[in-house]
Amino acid sequence: MNDGESKPQDRLADWLAEDMIAVNALIRERMASEHAPRIPEVTAHLVEAGGKRLRPMLTLAAARICGYTGPFHVHLAATVEFIHTATLLHDDVVDESTRRRGRPTANLLWDNKSSVLVGDYLFSRSFQLMVETGSLRVLDILANASATIAEGEVLQLTAAQDLATTEAIYLQVVRGKTAALFSAATEVGGVIAGAPEAQVRALFTYGDALGVAFQIVDDLLDYGGTAEAIGKNTGDDFRERKLTLPVIKAVAQASEKERAFWQRTIEKGVQNEGDLAEAMAIMARHGAMEAARSDALAWAKIARDALGELPDHPLRAMLDDLAGYVISRIN
Amino acid sequence: MNDGESKPQDRLADWLAEDMIAVNALIRERMASEHAPRIPEVTAHLVEAGGKRLRPMLTLAAARICGYTGPFHVHLAATVEFIHTATLLHDDVVDESTRRRGRPTANLLWDNKSSVLVGDYLFSRSFQLMVETGSLRVLDILANASATIAEGEVLQLTAAQDLATTEAIYLQVVRGKTAALFSAATEVGGVIAGAPEAQVRALFTYGDALGVAFQIVDDLLDYGGTAEAIGKNTGDDFRERKLTLPVIKAVAQASEKERAFWQRTIEKGVQNEGDLAEAMAIMARHGAMEAARSDALAWAKIARDALGELPDHPLRAMLDDLAGYVISRIN
Repeated sequence: MNDGESKPQDRLADWLAEDMIAVNALIRERMASEHAPRIPEVTAHLVEAGGKRLRPMLTLAAARICGYTGPFHVHLAATVEFIHTATLLHDDVVDESTRRRGRPTANLLWDNKSSVLVGDYLFSRSFQLMVETGSLRVLDILANASATIAEGEVLQLTAAQDLATTEAIYLQVVRGKTAALFSAATEVGGVIAGAPEAQVRALFTYGDALGVAFQIVDDLLDYGGTAEAIGKNTGDDFRERKLTLPVIKAVAQASEKERAFWQRTIEKGVQNEGDLAEAMAIMARHGAMEAARSDALAWAKIARDALGELPDHPLRAMLDDLAGYVISRIN
Repeated sequence: MNDGESKPQDRLADWLAEDMIAVNALIRERMASEHAPRIPEVTAHLVEAGGKRLRPMLTLAAARICGYTGPFHVHLAATVEFIHTATLLHDDVVDESTRRRGRPTANLLWDNKSSVLVGDYLFSRSFQLMVETGSLRVLDILANASATIAEGEVLQLTAAQDLATTEAIYLQVVRGKTAALFSAATEVGGVIAGAPEAQVRALFTYGDALGVAFQIVDDLLDYGGTAEAIGKNTGDDFRERKLTLPVIKAVAQASEKERAFWQRTIEKGVQNEGDLAEAMAIMARHGAMEAARSDALAWAKIARDALGELPDHPLRAMLDDLAGYVISRIN
């Protein structure tokens, strides 16, 4: 494959291959449980299901760009993957999901109990891993990210199906769902490397903006992507009555009749054949998809601009390409 | 009330009243969420339901006995209460419980989703609180306790209804359910006070042994207490097919016919009228209740003996009485 055509995440994986071998070995070692074999069973199902390992690669890349040569970027990369996996396990219980990454979910294969408890186990393991780095600042960042993630999840639960959801609330939910762990992943990479404050801040900004762009693109694809491309069906969010960014924008400009439509389909959940097409027609009428697309591009630009603070490095170029790749899915 | 007749936990609460006001204020402050009002709703339901606050009092007492005068014993007391509350929220989802402390559970009043996510939120808040102490050793202890708790819960899930469960497995489950947080609560009190190693070890031993004794007593009361005394009905564990200590002891000595009884009632869960009485008759035949009772007394003695390492202090006497009180329920 020509480098110019390969995906940036594949090039990151190539460049970081040696580090990722160490990360995967550490993950496998720490997800073991001498006494409770259910734990590695459930975890392996998810951890080895071919996830992109994007978050640990962000940590490794950030540390390497800032010149880190110690061992703890590997611990932190495993930490963020464990937090991510724990979050997925709990998410699938909360959302009553049956498929993840094209396979049945753990809550379906085992039960909700196992997903809740093994998620808790992975959180505690991630906590042990980060304590081993001996950096209180890293612990502070990850504790705050954990709180943002958990608060965002609860907010999503209560904001769901509520037409009063604003773009500000949406942004908080998105930070909880995606951006808080992205930004923590990049920030701790800089902190463990002892990078100057301006670089640490830039790494935070990159991760945060990349995460927000990523999530807006995901929302957009749900109304326009193919099941093949994104692993779920067009209109899933609509059927699940989620107030994603394009819907929020359309609701904000709704006529009386359109408002009644959103109330029926999203708030009350009464959906009939043809409603998805109608929702998309309303959003098109107000340019809601276009406006959300423009927001995603703006966030990707913030991410790319932040990289200017960092030392020149092949991995920096790949992070830049990654931000470009995220929005290429809607461009 | 005469001091000689009052419960030791009430005397602890009196002595630590000022500290506990600070702990409760901190708990109320940190369980707030600006954006997700569901969080304080769910948490308040549980935190303010009149729990005994035993764990935070253990931390405060340990720190005070070791002469601590700083502010962080309050953070650590709030931390262990948050971890405890988070565990209860997840437990009630896993056990499909409908009542806790005489009130409907959060999973019943709201839903499983809220209990899972608010539990996660409290874990992350506890994590932030402990990071604020700036003590890596405290973080290490609490990270390890969290892992023991989570592993014990999974073990309980997979060991449930399995007649091959040994006393060693039972002990690990009990450490996860109760003793790991008790021992972490007392140990971090000593660590934050900068106590000598021998005292820190003694505090760990006290909390661990107290927790194990507490849980064995709870198991025994389930086959002999009244609903009033323990807040649940006699025989709940049997109906839920739990392998508690007296059952494990009886299974270990079972005749062929008795073994068939346990297989039917616990493994297969086929229970008929009169089976509970039969279970209790079998346990009596083998002295299983008596043997478990004797184990509980031995653990309480370990707890009390450990206190000998600590400086003389009115709170030390109360911790001694507390260990005595725990077993007084079966004595």
